Amino acid sequence: MPDNETQGHSVTIFGITGIPEVQPGDQLGLLIASAASGQGSPLIQGDILVVTQKIISKAEGRLVNLSLISPSDFAIEFARHTGRDPRLVELVLRESKSIVRMDPDRGVIISETHHGFVCANAGIDQSNVPGEDVVCLLPEDSDASARRISDEIQESVGLSLPVIVSDTFGRAWREGHVNFAIGVSGMDPMTDYRGTRDAQGREMHVTTIAVADELAAAAELVQFKAIGVPVSVVRGYPFMTADPGYTPLIRERDRDMFR
Amino acid sequence: MPDNETQGHSVTIFGITGIPEVQPGDQLGLLIASAASGQGSPLIQGDILVVTQKIISKAEGRLVNLSLISPSDFAIEFARHTGRDPRLVELVLRESKSIVRMDPDRGVIISETHHGFVCANAGIDQSNVPGEDVVCLLPEDSDASARRISDEIQESVGLSLPVIVSDTFGRAWREGHVNFAIGVSGMDPMTDYRGTRDAQGREMHVTTIAVADELAAAAELVQFKAIGVPVSVVRGYPFMTADPGYTPLIRERDRDMFR
Repeated sequence: MPDNETQGHSVTIFGITGIPEVQPGDQLGLLIASAASGQGSPLIQGDILVVTQKIISKAEGRLVNLSLISPSDFAIEFARHTGRDPRLVELVLRESKSIVRMDPDRGVIISETHHGFVCANAGIDQSNVPGEDVVCLLPEDSDASARRISDEIQESVGLSLPVIVSDTFGRAWREGHVNFAIGVSGMDPMTDYRGTRDAQGREMHVTTIAVADELAAAAELVQFKAIGVPVSVVRGYPFMTADPGYTPLIRERDRDMFR
Repeated sequence: MPDNETQGHSVTIFGITGIPEVQPGDQLGLLIASAASGQGSPLIQGDILVVTQKIISKAEGRLVNLSLISPSDFAIEFARHTGRDPRLVELVLRESKSIVRMDPDRGVIISETHHGFVCANAGIDQSNVPGEDVVCLLPEDSDASARRISDEIQESVGLSLPVIVSDTFGRAWREGHVNFAIGVSGMDPMTDYRGTRDAQGREMHVTTIAVADELAAAAELVQFKAIGVPVSVVRGYPFMTADPGYTPLIRERDRDMFR
């Protein structure tokens, strides 16, 4: 668990607004640091940045025009049953390492992306992108995206801050979407309480908290589904410095009972 | 989406400490309001309280001594394979409406509780409870627990505040535990963005955010697995008033591809 005080502690989350419409090649770290200063809340040491995937994908040129995609027979057949766009189905298949569930009645595809995330439509999204036929793919290497933003902030304002890339996924068994961490730089995404003792002195066995996911979820509370607020700052959380990226968050296939 | 301003907005989360060891029959709302004042951060209108399940179960007398449980042959057989306590296995079965997965090699039971939550061991927990053989069950009606705390706070300090009951669950596909909402009073657990338009004027189709789960996750950031901090206050989040309880968070069985 974190070394810092555990009591009477407070965490503040605020959104960064005023980031201009992101273009391919933009240095997001610079835009974020500048927008934070511009709104009168400059970044400080200890801040954690949570950046929504969409602006990263835009900066990295991960927009795809569906008119350039030739769907396979399999994609055409699945799309025909479900009224979906066969080019989008094709793209979902291309962005997937494996299919976890495919429901031809409802048109749902839950797959494992090349990164290892299990989510609907391989994380491909059609909202908040310019153009009717344009869709947005996940960043190719979301840990590298987080690291790049962190490096740019270091260059820009001399602060070394953890960065979490977030995206909104559905879950098994529960309705509604929630923000998850899909890229992590500069902090341990997990907090391990195993071996610590509870208030009765009994050793805690199984509890590892996915703090990066909790931070991503918390960040969404000021983003309102990223409408004008693509970046949040979490201030005051005593993160553990480490750099394993998002990998510890992914359950390995042979430990997973739900695929 | 929330009516309030969506930009430049901030949310603060802090823990409430100094709540005495909870006894059956305790009025948690009174203890919480008093502890908040005692630490110099009295509750104010608009606060959302996130209360960990454990202290609620203690107040409601949901501790069970395993010595009183006679395991069935089925529980004995499963426990024998896995080295688990057959009385605990029996209790998990009794607290479950259906079994979702049972792994006799690793001793894992994922079940659907009588409330409808899908989680390991029916939410039964052995940490932070007094006595070697004592375990803690989930509250019987966690929405009623939330409502009771809210009512007690109303009586005590005259404020009408939403209350979320939280517990730490594992997830499919991802490692680590995260706080979830298992009881809700006084707010809509979901925020529905369907029908709103994105920045490009395109209608958003599928996004409903499980804000109660995000609030529960955010609350954990100051609780450090409830070690001395069983209650968090989320201040500044523009919740929607409603009272459907936790039910909207539960995916109905026929819409669920993972059981």
